[in-house]
Order: sequence, then structure tokens, then C-alpha cells
Amino acid sequence: MYTLAEIARHIDADLIGSPSVRIHKVASLLNAREGDLTHLSNPYYRAYLQKTQASAVILKSADAENCPVNALVVDNASLAYAKVSQLFHRNEAMPDGISKKTDIDPTAQIGEDVGIGPFVSIGPNVILGDRVKIGSHTSIGAESRVGDDSYVHSGVSIYDHVEIGQRCTIQANSVIGADGFGFIPDSDGKLQHINQLGGVSIGNDVVVGASSTIDRGAIENTVVEDGVKLDDQVHIGHNCVVGAHSMLCGCTGLGGSVTIGPHCVLAGGVGIAGSGPLNIASGVTIGAMTYVSRSIDKPGTYQGATLHTDIESWRRNALRFTKLEELAQRVAELEKKLKERD
Amino acid sequence: MYTLAEIARHIDADLIGSPSVRIHKVASLLNAREGDLTHLSNPYYRAYLQKTQASAVILKSADAENCPVNALVVDNASLAYAKVSQLFHRNEAMPDGISKKTDIDPTAQIGEDVGIGPFVSIGPNVILGDRVKIGSHTSIGAESRVGDDSYVHSGVSIYDHVEIGQRCTIQANSVIGADGFGFIPDSDGKLQHINQLGGVSIGNDVVVGASSTIDRGAIENTVVEDGVKLDDQVHIGHNCVVGAHSMLCGCTGLGGSVTIGPHCVLAGGVGIAGSGPLNIASGVTIGAMTYVSRSIDKPGTYQGATLHTDIESWRRNALRFTKLEELAQRVAELEKKLKERD
Amino acid sequence: MYTLAEIARHIDADLIGSPSVRIHKVASLLNAREGDLTHLSNPYYRAYLQKTQASAVILKSADAENCPVNALVVDNASLAYAKVSQLFHRNEAMPDGISKKTDIDPTAQIGEDVGIGPFVSIGPNVILGDRVKIGSHTSIGAESRVGDDSYVHSGVSIYDHVEIGQRCTIQANSVIGADGFGFIPDSDGKLQHINQLGGVSIGNDVVVGASSTIDRGAIENTVVEDGVKLDDQVHIGHNCVVGAHSMLCGCTGLGGSVTIGPHCVLAGGVGIAGSGPLNIASGVTIGAMTYVSRSIDKPGTYQGATLHTDIESWRRNALRFTKLEELAQRVAELEKKLKERD
Repeated sequence: MYTLAEIARHIDADLIGSPSVRIHKVASLLNAREGDLTHLSNPYYRAYLQKTQASAVILKSADAENCPVNALVVDNASLAYAKVSQLFHRNEAMPDGISKKTDIDPTAQIGEDVGIGPFVSIGPNVILGDRVKIGSHTSIGAESRVGDDSYVHSGVSIYDHVEIGQRCTIQANSVIGADGFGFIPDSDGKLQHINQLGGVSIGNDVVVGASSTIDRGAIENTVVEDGVKLDDQVHIGHNCVVGAHSMLCGCTGLGGSVTIGPHCVLAGGVGIAGSGPLNIASGVTIGAMTYVSRSIDKPGTYQGATLHTDIESWRRNALRFTKLEELAQRVAELEKKLKERD
Repeated sequence: MYTLAEIARHIDADLIGSPSVRIHKVASLLNAREGDLTHLSNPYYRAYLQKTQASAVILKSADAENCPVNALVVDNASLAYAKVSQLFHRNEAMPDGISKKTDIDPTAQIGEDVGIGPFVSIGPNVILGDRVKIGSHTSIGAESRVGDDSYVHSGVSIYDHVEIGQRCTIQANSVIGADGFGFIPDSDGKLQHINQLGGVSIGNDVVVGASSTIDRGAIENTVVEDGVKLDDQVHIGHNCVVGAHSMLCGCTGLGGSVTIGPHCVLAGGVGIAGSGPLNIASGVTIGAMTYVSRSIDKPGTYQGATLHTDIESWRRNALRFTKLEELAQRVAELEKKLKERD
Repeated sequence: MYTLAEIARHIDADLIGSPSVRIHKVASLLNAREGDLTHLSNPYYRAYLQKTQASAVILKSADAENCPVNALVVDNASLAYAKVSQLFHRNEAMPDGISKKTDIDPTAQIGEDVGIGPFVSIGPNVILGDRVKIGSHTSIGAESRVGDDSYVHSGVSIYDHVEIGQRCTIQANSVIGADGFGFIPDSDGKLQHINQLGGVSIGNDVVVGASSTIDRGAIENTVVEDGVKLDDQVHIGHNCVVGAHSMLCGCTGLGGSVTIGPHCVLAGGVGIAGSGPLNIASGVTIGAMTYVSRSIDKPGTYQGATLHTDIESWRRNALRFTKLEELAQRVAELEKKLKERD
């Protein structure tokens, strides 16, 4: 429980209303009740403001006059809400102490105040920093390291020679350090394996979503820099470099040797892969379901894909797409003919 | 083993042939032998009917005259086959009793006739209904519940505060309740975490495929309603609502705050995400690999994506697509010029 | 450590330089130092050749004259490097002997020199061949088999009645044999389950990437033939047949009943699914992010999808795509009018 005055101070907001009101939890604009704090960030929800029954709303000054209850006025309501959300943890049980139902190699070095859940296996020469938490059923291979204050959830498979920095969160069932996909056909067309001799380096403050995969490098390490956030079911191929503070949304996949600059945003379902290495500049945003087959040199927002329509229209349009070159040539021909007659 | 008469009764079919024939198993039209029952649902397989060596075939009346063997005539051969398939279980070993190699919190409540495999971890205040089966290596976090007769397979990570209804099936290695992907850049461009305080609610008779991910809500719960079927590698973002009896095929992903109505079918590889919440009406079918960036208000079948061609044609067509607006303006210009001359 | 002479012999290369030079490890052209062997396969890296500090480079004869250091001249530098990479293993700890923290059914048959990690569960009548390695937290269901010299990594869920051949590698957290996605709506629109009675057959020398899913067949087995390589997060639906020595890159998904011929290459993010079974001929290459909705009869390279542009251009072009049929008809109308005037 916090007073509005305390929360206003925490997020550096102008409080319009009563400082002594008590906030017990956060809620959505639509469903908030007395004692709840809510926020208006996405304009989509503006229609709900007038009717909210929250005790207070975090919002921008432009919305303040329409707020029927206490208002916490800020420049960036999303960011202010993020800070508030960190005050209202949910009651999640984290591993506390080291379960006896584990398999920890005697050469592993375990820091202070580490929590390790049941059925965790830790290999030779692993180093866990202070206050690290390892969820149940996670395995950590030989020579790998997890930095201070990182939390690896349940069912994660970390291979050997993987380095994870400090304050990272690895969600459940992710795989870090599996072999990169390196095969080359021999003269019989049989696929010969290229041994994957590199590792994976993950910086500080990185989040890896559930069931994501980050492959180890072929020769040098695959690299995920500080502050990167990966959503669920993201795939990072071997020898990729994901630049600091970039964000890759769900189901996005990077083929091998893709370098993403810092502060990029890749929306969901994006695929980046080429016949050689690709480079994406810093500050690039790529829209959902886009296929990127060439490097992008300039910051900006890029998009590919098509829009949906009813399926009958789509069938005709998609067929026309398969002859678009021909159509363009017919247009050029028409232009030529018309010019000849001028 | 069943007689044809018994099977005809079970699926309410008209039997053309001998009621006393014994059926030992089901098989495909092409490979069925004596003692096998097969079915003709997809017209693609009609060519195999004349040569089948099955003892009987489930089919529609229109196909009956071409059936060389006993026929079970029904209106809906797929549905009738589904019912028959349920008579011929495969011999799968399910957890029976509670393995001693588990880690079950003493505050957990376990129903009658529950089966729990080895290396399962169950957290504080978890409630498992009667006849629940939990496969090996599955973890269930604090305060979560699994309803009567549900079967959670191996390697599933269920976080805290997740509710799963009755008669559900969760296939292996899925993750339910991982943090939603909520980050917001601060003034330095560093991504601040929005704590994910909601949970996940899953109704009755839901199937979740292997390696699928359903994220917990930011404030309120992510919801999967009764009878929903999710295939493998499906991703459901935070605060989605998937309507009753909808079906999401493999590799489909929903960004945050997507609401799908009841009785929808999303084919494989579909991606639905927008800058704000999106709503898909009930009874909508979306074709494979379609990107949906706007809400869909009316029932019907929708499709996006492009068709494949040989790569040389595609290169030219795809380049033309990047200048399609210009081409359309050139056509408009031609129309204008031609009109001027009329 | 190997001498250049030894390596030249191993990969059947012409050595230009000093046979007695000692090679301690492999490295990239850019970062190689004395004692390192590197290779030039992708023309993208040719610019780095002149400045390399490696002790030797594997390359084609056309590049030999620009090589400032010892050269190993071969016809196929990628393939030669693959062979060399197999000489320089990384030091990965594999399960050695059978951990005592396992749950192995007494009816399981375990071959010679098998290694089984901690927290592995093995069901009734499972057969593990000689020298099989099973990583921690893997479960193998009843009646399944793993052939000689195969390595199943950590956290893999293998269901019942799955057959895996010899010398296979299954990367972490994959799922083999989960139920195929078979549901059919009844007259109320509720989805009835089609029991999945088949299994999965995987040949020899197959690689399955991390977090991939291969579903069991509805009636007959899903089949992955000899030498197939699957990358991470690949999905194979029920009753697919993946032909020998084919390669499916990351995030590619096959719907049910898709048959891929031998020696195919599916790049990343490809989706293949139709209303009936689809067949892809042998020797087909499909480019990244392509949707394949029809069978492909001839060998060759195919591609779908669109190219990215800046988002403003894309918005206009994508809207035009939704009226491409109309545009084509307008062009046809113009052609007609112009012809009338001739």
C-alpha cells in the first residue's frame, strides 16, 4: 500500500487531487475500483477515462481535464506506469536456498544467497554469481557462467561455454547455446556438419522470453548485448550480434550472421536472413511479419508483408502479383504507344 | 476389437455390408488390410477407394457406390472417423500414482486418483483436481490450479497464478504464464520493465500444443476460453482473449491484447498484432501465413501473403511491388490522357 | 594440434607454403592470429583475406594468389572447412555412465557404453542402442527406441512409439511424438479430437534443432528420412514425410501431410500447408519466409514474400496490392481502348 503522494514522488508526477488517498493495487481503466491506480497510455483506451472508478489515473496533461478522479500528470504515462508496476510485485515463489534434489558438479562455484530449485543440474566449472536464482529442471553446461542477480526460470537448457551477465531474466524452456545450423553438402548431396566451436555471450540486463533459442557461434561467439529484450519463441542464429537495448518481439527469427544495431525494435514474426551476413543499422524499427533479405543502412521504420482481405479478392490479387512484372511492362508499352501518338 | 455393427451404432452410420465383420484397427485407405477400418473424408484420397483392401470404409453416400468393400455411410465422414478413432486408443503409458521422485510442496492439494510422473515440482498452494495426470519434468508454480481430468504432459513450465480448467490437454514443453513482453524505453533509450501482475485463465476442454507459450497478463489475466485448440509452437501474448472453440494452427502468434472471437480458425503461421488492441469477430477463418494488422469485424474467410513462383519471376515481381503505388499512378495518368482525347 | 601437412592430407588440399606449420585452432579471417587456421568460403569475406594474420587459409585456387599466408587450396572451401572443424572439437561434457538420479523402467533395454544424465526418465520397453547419450531432464516414452551413437540433449520430450535411428543428434527441449493437430467441428461447432494413433520414424544421421516439434501421425507414422537436418523451432505436422538429406532452416513449419522430397532446402520461416496433402519434388530450394500453398512438381528455386521498404512506401504499395486485380483490369481496358483506335 502506498499513498498517492508517495507514488507521485516515485514517478515525479504532478498530483491533481488528494495526496493521502491510499493505493492498494494497479488495475485497468475499465475494471479499476476504489483503491486502485490505473493509467492512460494508449489513446485506444481514452474512451474509458470518463467512466473509470479508479482512485487515481496516471496520464498526460492533455488528458487531465477529462479525468473524473485523482490524476498523476506526467510526460510519459507508459514509462511512469512501468515504474509504478515495479512497486506492486505479484507474490511469486522464487527458489530460496539450494534444493537437495539437485545435481551440482563439485567444481561449480556458487555465489552468496543463491537459490536453486529442485531437479536442477549444474556442470563442471560453472560459476553462479551472488543472488542468482535457478528455477527447477534447468540445466547449465560445463564452463558456463550466470552473473549476479540473474534469474533463470524453469526448464531452461543452457549448454556449455555460455556467458550470461548480471540482472538477466531467462524465461522458462529457453535454450541457449545449442549448435548453430551449419551443414554443407558433399559431392553425394549428404550434409556434412560444421562443428560449432564458438559459444554465446549475453550481456547485463538482458531478458530472454520463453521457448526462445540462441545458438552458439560457429567459430566466434553469438552475442546479445546489454539491455536487449527478447520475447517468446524468438530465434537467434549462430554468430548474430544483437545490439544493446534492442527489442525483438515474439516469433521473430534471425538467420546466421545477422548484426542488429543498438536501440532497434523488431516487431513480431520478423524474419531476417540473407545469403551472406546482414547488418541492420542502429535505431531501426521493423514492422511485424516483415522479411528482411538485405542490410538496412539508415535508421527509420521499415515494413514488408501484405495486408489481408477477403479470400476471394486475395486469390485474384495474389495471382496478379505473380505476373506483376508483365503488368508493369504492359503499362510501359501503353505509355510508349501514347507518346508515339503525341 | 469391434464388429462393424457396433461401430455403425457408435457413429450412427448406415451399414452397407456384413454387420459381423470384425475390426481390429484403423488404417489409411492406401495401406489398410483385412480387419482394418478406413475412411474417405478428403476428396484428395478418392482415387484410392476402388483399390482399398480395408474391411470397411466410412464415407458419404455419394461415395458409397464406388466402395468395393463394406461401407459405413454417414453425413460427415471426418466427424464419424473422429468418433471411431476414440475407440482405438494407442497404448500410451500415463503416470499412475504419485512418483516418489517428485518435489511437492506440503501445502499443495492433490485430488483423487491423480498420477504424477518423476521429477515433477509442485509449488505452494497448488490445487490439482481429481484424475489429473502430470507428466515427468513438469513444474507448477505457486497458487496455480489444474482442473479434474486434465493431462499435462512432460516438460511443461506452468508459472504461478495460472488456472487450467477440466479435461484439458497440455502437450510437452509448453510454457504457461511467463511474463508478458512489456518494456518501455526511458529517456536514455534503456528498456524499463513493466511488471506483469496478471495471470492466465484457461477454460475447460482446451488443448495446448507442444512448445506453445501463453504469457500472463500485464494487469488482468490472459484468457483462453472453453474448447480452444492450440497447435504446436503457437504464441499467445499478454492480455489476449481467445474465444471458445477457436482453433489456432501451428506457428501462429498473437501479439498483446488481441481478442479472437469464438469459433474462429487461424491457419498456420498467422501473425496478428497492431499498435493498439485488435478484435477478430466470431466465425472468422484466416488463411495460412497471413499478417493481420487491423481488426476484423465480420465473419468470413480472410487471407494475406503472396504465392510462390520460380525465384527469377519473384525477384522481378517483388521489386515491382515496391513501386506499385507509382505504377498505379502511371495507370491513372494514362486513363486521364486517354480521356482528354475522347 | 595438427601440422598443415596433416590437415592438407585430411582435406585433400594442395598446400602452398610450409607443411610443418602448427595449427592450434580455427578462427575467422578477421580475428585469426598465429597458430590459427581460417577459411574463405563466402565471397562476402574476401576483403579480409589480404590482412589476415592466420597461419593458413583454406580457399579456392582463384583466391590463392591474394593469400598473404600459407594456403590450403581446395575445390570446395566450405566442405573442406566442415571436415577440418570436426578435428577441433570443443570440450563439451557429455553424460558418462548412468546417473543414479534417473527413473528408468526395469523393462527398458540399455545398450553398451550408454551415458544417461541426471533426472532422465525412461519408460517401459524403451530400447537405447550402444553408445547412446541422453542429456539431463529428457523423457522417453514407452516403446520408443534410440539407435546406436545417437545423442539426445537436455530437456527433450520423446513420447511413446517414437523411433530414432543411428548417429542422430536431437538438440535441447525438442518434442517428438506429441499428438498431431486433428480436430473436427461437430454440429454445435465444438471441436472433436481425432485420436492420433500413429508414431514417428526418424532415420539415421538426422539432426533435430532446439525447441523443434515433430508430431506423431494420425494413423500412420510421421517420417523423417536419413540425413535430414532440422534447425531450431522447426515444426513438422502429422503425417509429413521429410525426404532424405533435406535441410529445413529455423522457424519453418509444415502443416499436416506435407511430403518433401530428398535433397530439398527450405530456408527460414517457410510455411507449407494446403487444404489437402502437398508434395514438394526432390531438389527443390525454397527461399526464406515463403508461403507454399500448392505442390511443387519440378526441382528448382522458388520464392514468395515481399521485400521491405520504408513504411510510408509500404503502406501505399500494400494498399494497392489489395486492389491489384482492379488495376490489372484497368490496364486491360486501356489496351482495349487503344487498340480500338488503331
